[in-house]
Amino acid sequence: MKNTEKTMEKIVALCKNRGFVFPGSEIYGGLANSWDYGPLGVEMKNNVKRAWWKKFVQENPYNVGLDSAILMNPQVWVASGHVSTFNDPLIDCKACKMRHRADKLVESYVQEHGMDVNVEAMTQEELVAFIRDNQVPCPGCGKSDFTDIRKFNLMFKTHQGVTEDTANEVYLRPETAQGIFVNFPAIQRTTRRKLPFGVCQIGKSFRNEITPGNFIFRIREFEQMELEFFCKPDTDLEWFQYWRTYCHDWLKGLNIKEENLRLRDHEPEELSFYSKATTDFEYLFPFGWGELWGVADRTNYDLTQHQEHSGQDLTYFDQEKNEHYIPYVVEPSLGADRMTLALLVEAYDEEVVDAEKNDVRTVMRFHPAIAPFKCAVLPLSKKLSEKAREIQAELSKDWMVDFDDTGSIGKRYRREDEIGTPYCITVDFDTVGDADKAGDNCVTVRDRDTMEQVRLPIDQLKSYLAEKLAY
Amino acid sequence: MKNTEKTMEKIVALCKNRGFVFPGSEIYGGLANSWDYGPLGVEMKNNVKRAWWKKFVQENPYNVGLDSAILMNPQVWVASGHVSTFNDPLIDCKACKMRHRADKLVESYVQEHGMDVNVEAMTQEELVAFIRDNQVPCPGCGKSDFTDIRKFNLMFKTHQGVTEDTANEVYLRPETAQGIFVNFPAIQRTTRRKLPFGVCQIGKSFRNEITPGNFIFRIREFEQMELEFFCKPDTDLEWFQYWRTYCHDWLKGLNIKEENLRLRDHEPEELSFYSKATTDFEYLFPFGWGELWGVADRTNYDLTQHQEHSGQDLTYFDQEKNEHYIPYVVEPSLGADRMTLALLVEAYDEEVVDAEKNDVRTVMRFHPAIAPFKCAVLPLSKKLSEKAREIQAELSKDWMVDFDDTGSIGKRYRREDEIGTPYCITVDFDTVGDADKAGDNCVTVRDRDTMEQVRLPIDQLKSYLAEKLAY
Repeated sequence: MKNTEKTMEKIVALCKNRGFVFPGSEIYGGLANSWDYGPLGVEMKNNVKRAWWKKFVQENPYNVGLDSAILMNPQVWVASGHVSTFNDPLIDCKACKMRHRADKLVESYVQEHGMDVNVEAMTQEELVAFIRDNQVPCPGCGKSDFTDIRKFNLMFKTHQGVTEDTANEVYLRPETAQGIFVNFPAIQRTTRRKLPFGVCQIGKSFRNEITPGNFIFRIREFEQMELEFFCKPDTDLEWFQYWRTYCHDWLKGLNIKEENLRLRDHEPEELSFYSKATTDFEYLFPFGWGELWGVADRTNYDLTQHQEHSGQDLTYFDQEKNEHYIPYVVEPSLGADRMTLALLVEAYDEEVVDAEKNDVRTVMRFHPAIAPFKCAVLPLSKKLSEKAREIQAELSKDWMVDFDDTGSIGKRYRREDEIGTPYCITVDFDTVGDADKAGDNCVTVRDRDTMEQVRLPIDQLKSYLAEKLAY
Repeated sequence: MKNTEKTMEKIVALCKNRGFVFPGSEIYGGLANSWDYGPLGVEMKNNVKRAWWKKFVQENPYNVGLDSAILMNPQVWVASGHVSTFNDPLIDCKACKMRHRADKLVESYVQEHGMDVNVEAMTQEELVAFIRDNQVPCPGCGKSDFTDIRKFNLMFKTHQGVTEDTANEVYLRPETAQGIFVNFPAIQRTTRRKLPFGVCQIGKSFRNEITPGNFIFRIREFEQMELEFFCKPDTDLEWFQYWRTYCHDWLKGLNIKEENLRLRDHEPEELSFYSKATTDFEYLFPFGWGELWGVADRTNYDLTQHQEHSGQDLTYFDQEKNEHYIPYVVEPSLGADRMTLALLVEAYDEEVVDAEKNDVRTVMRFHPAIAPFKCAVLPLSKKLSEKAREIQAELSKDWMVDFDDTGSIGKRYRREDEIGTPYCITVDFDTVGDADKAGDNCVTVRDRDTMEQVRLPIDQLKSYLAEKLAY
């Protein structure tokens, strides 16, 4: 019997073979852990982004959108703390020259030895002392002889303008959030919104990670879907609960199973010093639990920092209270690539169709809103291609529609299952008829999950699909 | 009488005041010519991108999509020629230290003196000689004493990985096109497409322009919508014509007026050495004609370069001819920001409603597919807000819907006109009725352009709007 276990290897292979995700710059040997979204991947990821925008901006009465630039005034990153504290503690093995993140080194050691140590809370000095006292070995050569820790800032740096001097240094943003904070006054003024209201943004961010990995889980160039929700002081914990639930509902609405989801509330000692509450949404990937969504009550920390550094007034005027204050903020921050990966993993299924014949089909059980193609039109014979193309053209006005006229119909169904197309529409000779018999103008519609088929008049296809595909 | 002329100043002011486009990092004094799309701008630009994707990917039977990474293997840019030739010729005035682009300096001089010189074709040496021979003055101080020309590469450079040495240098892509070329074999293999087929991509590109300007017309961080269309040799000029027409139709389909559009075919001597034909689509901005879309027959130049540099086989196997060859390519390349600007300019109108009263309304006559909000729900009184919110929630499932319950209804109409909302839906006391009279469950729908009003049952709103908003 075929092994039907869900593994990263299988998912990565399917992504490469079917055009979801390709290694970046592949013909040049790649670029360390960069990935390109292929024809199916771009549709899927766009669907993820659209599904988020639909529920968080379009349908939510509180929120508006924003698309701020990747390159910002460098003072933004001084104010946000990224210039001084967005560092990894790097350490080199003196013996074999291998480079490590000191915290990861200690973390592995602690886990291996079942020690009860909070590594995240350790200072640089404490890390050095721990490595020395425990003679933590280098994973490369086994010796324990390391350089001092040096801080490595994770922001990509570049120069804007003609000269490559410090005055022209700019960073690729490491998060989209700060673009929202610095635009808070302009958005509040132009939308004339009263508190509470939120600002949503989707966009690329860049982090020069030392150890990217796990396919598109941790990548240097990634896309975020962030909301900063501005509310009155003392209402932040209520809104924190509102968004925690809202995010949870959104995931469930895309058919993420509860058993693969874990909401981990931070303990008080684990919280950032400015945060009153934080919940990590974790998803059970084949490589273990991984963070998907961080929902954090950031209090008035960020706006206060920007007010201090910019010298601009970032307060909100509360007409009811006749009072100026800096709003409090709740931030749900989600990675679009991680979300896409979670949905790929969630959808992946190898179904035993016939155990005796060892017949197993691979089917991506995407939510219809996420599936790259909503349906595929399959003429039973190439002679029927013209009619099939007509149907495809009509349906394409509303949806992404695949077309396949090669190979047996059974093979084509399996191909569409493998890319998660919810419905296959088969055009046969009864559809068009012949000299002796008029066509019935009907097609067969096959359901990806149940494999059940119904026969439908062509002119009812759109309303049938619209109902099935609604999100 | 109010001056109703369409100017950049007015359009930029409207963009800032209503939340289309804000100066980037504004609270920190900005970052030279960077711009952020506000709540209305992000919707509008998303609509532009969706309209392009719909016609170029979803509805076009030849094309598929791609979303490749911004950071690529640097060899890509060696092969494409960007490392060696993507330069601006810079020159400094020795007297006042002002920095200039030598070609722009000569161009201005030539125009001013009505000389017949093809500046684009001039070499660096010829530029230097021209400036010296004609004693071209510095626009800053009037003297003519310049340094030698130095080449300034327009690619933003950064470092990936821990050390800032040459081995780790990577570039922010200056165009999305090369991401398509290097993925050509993977896309062809996984989609099993035969020639001709095309690959579409939308994404950010970066060019370290010395003189950005004209609002969002020329910016350093910009977004492209590019198609690379792969076809058989000797069919490229046919397909060039196909796409030239297709692009033209797309612009007309978004209500760009013919009189504001100019298709400029390149003269043979103006063509790049590898190109067989190129047409620039130019739009008449308030600051003059500006390039919007470049449609170029690039022959097999790019794939040939990548085959040579990568050592990979980038040929296509033609089963009919039983022959391997490198496909020819037609490239329509459009800037999403420029397109957005063109649509803002095109839509801007100041209509004299009543000349005697000097009553002028500003109305953005967006195509419905482009308008940020498709409709706005306006309760005549705050007492009607609940019903109005109900209607908004229902319509929001399909569209972006604005809501406004402040100020007189006339003022609210004008506000919606100014942001281009095609339909205003007014909820009044007849809608809901009172103790004495049952509500008629109807609303008034006002057309932005004609200002005509119709009364409609609420349950017919969706189908009415769906028909009006179809794209």
